Amino acid sequence: MIGLRSIDSFYVGGTDLTLAGLPVAERRMAAGAAPRRIDPNGACVTGQMYVQAYRQVAPRHPLPVLLWHGGGLTGACWETTPDGRPGWLMWFLEQGFDVLVSDAVERGRAGWSRWPEIYAEPPFFRTKNEAWEAFRIGPAGSWNDDPARRIAHAPMLFPTEAMDAFARQFVPRWADREAITMAAYAALLDRVGPCIVVAHSQGGGFAFEAAQIRPEAVRAVVALEPSGGPAAVSSAATRHLVLWGDRVWGHPEWSRYRSVADAHIGRIAAAGGIVRMIDLPEEGVAGNSHMLMMDRNSDALAARVLAWLAEIGVAGA
Amino acid sequence: MIGLRSIDSFYVGGTDLTLAGLPVAERRMAAGAAPRRIDPNGACVTGQMYVQAYRQVAPRHPLPVLLWHGGGLTGACWETTPDGRPGWLMWFLEQGFDVLVSDAVERGRAGWSRWPEIYAEPPFFRTKNEAWEAFRIGPAGSWNDDPARRIAHAPMLFPTEAMDAFARQFVPRWADREAITMAAYAALLDRVGPCIVVAHSQGGGFAFEAAQIRPEAVRAVVALEPSGGPAAVSSAATRHLVLWGDRVWGHPEWSRYRSVADAHIGRIAAAGGIVRMIDLPEEGVAGNSHMLMMDRNSDALAARVLAWLAEIGVAGA
Repeated sequence: MIGLRSIDSFYVGGTDLTLAGLPVAERRMAAGAAPRRIDPNGACVTGQMYVQAYRQVAPRHPLPVLLWHGGGLTGACWETTPDGRPGWLMWFLEQGFDVLVSDAVERGRAGWSRWPEIYAEPPFFRTKNEAWEAFRIGPAGSWNDDPARRIAHAPMLFPTEAMDAFARQFVPRWADREAITMAAYAALLDRVGPCIVVAHSQGGGFAFEAAQIRPEAVRAVVALEPSGGPAAVSSAATRHLVLWGDRVWGHPEWSRYRSVADAHIGRIAAAGGIVRMIDLPEEGVAGNSHMLMMDRNSDALAARVLAWLAEIGVAGA
Repeated sequence: MIGLRSIDSFYVGGTDLTLAGLPVAERRMAAGAAPRRIDPNGACVTGQMYVQAYRQVAPRHPLPVLLWHGGGLTGACWETTPDGRPGWLMWFLEQGFDVLVSDAVERGRAGWSRWPEIYAEPPFFRTKNEAWEAFRIGPAGSWNDDPARRIAHAPMLFPTEAMDAFARQFVPRWADREAITMAAYAALLDRVGPCIVVAHSQGGGFAFEAAQIRPEAVRAVVALEPSGGPAAVSSAATRHLVLWGDRVWGHPEWSRYRSVADAHIGRIAAAGGIVRMIDLPEEGVAGNSHMLMMDRNSDALAARVLAWLAEIGVAGA
């Protein structure tokens, strides 16, 4: 049972702008309807981020957990796993944390803006075959549109039978929005104050950066397979935990991302910061994909995270 | 306090397809990164809908409430109001209902698909000035980018000071997706079973249609200013409540939408169905905008809805 005081949502960040000079068109607003005059010019907003906040009646920990999704996904990735198990949102709520789930700029409920007028480029759409390989579920060339003929890595902890369900979560993404997204995360931290940031993949890179620009707010970063990191360290105040799944070093892209993250964590440690790396295959846990919070051992991994948060003193016992 | 057994999410609907023949491009995946080969071809899904389900430990009513948003918006419209008050999601949860909030096809966390390869046309982006006038917050021509210089209708129950906050909820929409969206709503009803559908604007049209194609599931429709309706009635089994705000008949578009809805409700009544219309200005309640669930009297309107649900026997006392 989760006793909630409130479920509320809000938007942070965003810049107001006014579009002018775009052609007015005659367009149908509904199938079968008569065309009507559509004027796309006028006032709009771009760069906002959506946040859904779950507040406990009696939180059992001093700091809220912020869940930041990765590229091409939304906050939905923290909810039910594709095979129908409770995800990390429920897990952290059941542990008594206040939890805030965001949809980053141009993802999900945050909305997105037109191109080329506001965004410079068109978006990217991730195919299932790309995700299958990029998320290290199966080797390159092992995808098949027929689920029965897909060959996953073995052992494999991602629920491969739910791959098509998982793909329903994919949303388009843009490549030129990093600064604007980071500004919205900074606005979120300014609003929330001291917190724990749990971030996946692209979100991990934003979390690393957030700990540099808002060290007083970000008391701990838990990065699940971060895909990027800042080039320099100005603060070592934030505690960092990084988790890595299986087959990272054998993957051209992930070995490069991991090197970037390792270098960043190394710089924080060298500056006297408190860091921890959990390399699951090194510990004998084989088969984790890039989607650690969806893998079959997702609850066990969440428990590892909580143990570390308690150890560094930002979660209750 | 809300005692929840679970918060889970799932996707319904959607069609798998495979894209082929699209040009492979060299594109930057992140600012400053080297261009890499991006192949957009492969397997994807289109037409899915996102649903977030809040289940009570001890529901006090026999049927769940489904909240269906309107055009250019997402499920976020049912959460906190733009001026920061609890919205209808919290209100119905506090009354003890299980509540399911959806993001319809191509909105919010449901994701959207590329055009012209999958969708035939580009989307529509609603400007603030269009919304100001179309949602009957201010008269035509009264918009100003400067909040201090906007002239709203008077009296006005929409929290006009939060208009710029409200616009952060706007998402693009397409005009040619109605059949696919309706199919996803039907899939949702097939999964959920007997329920109460509370729907706004474009969602109201989908709810009217849903009561025709799934009368055994949709026990009651509460339509807030529905913007459409089916051309014929085959079932009068579902109870219907329709709410209308102020200045509908004076507005060219809304008077037309209202005529369509009135005709539909009239056909249900003629077929022996149980219908109720609440015309707020006729009752002496002046100033409601199109955004009834965000207006300053949103709690009072929700209480009217609950009273009607109890009266027709689909909610507990």
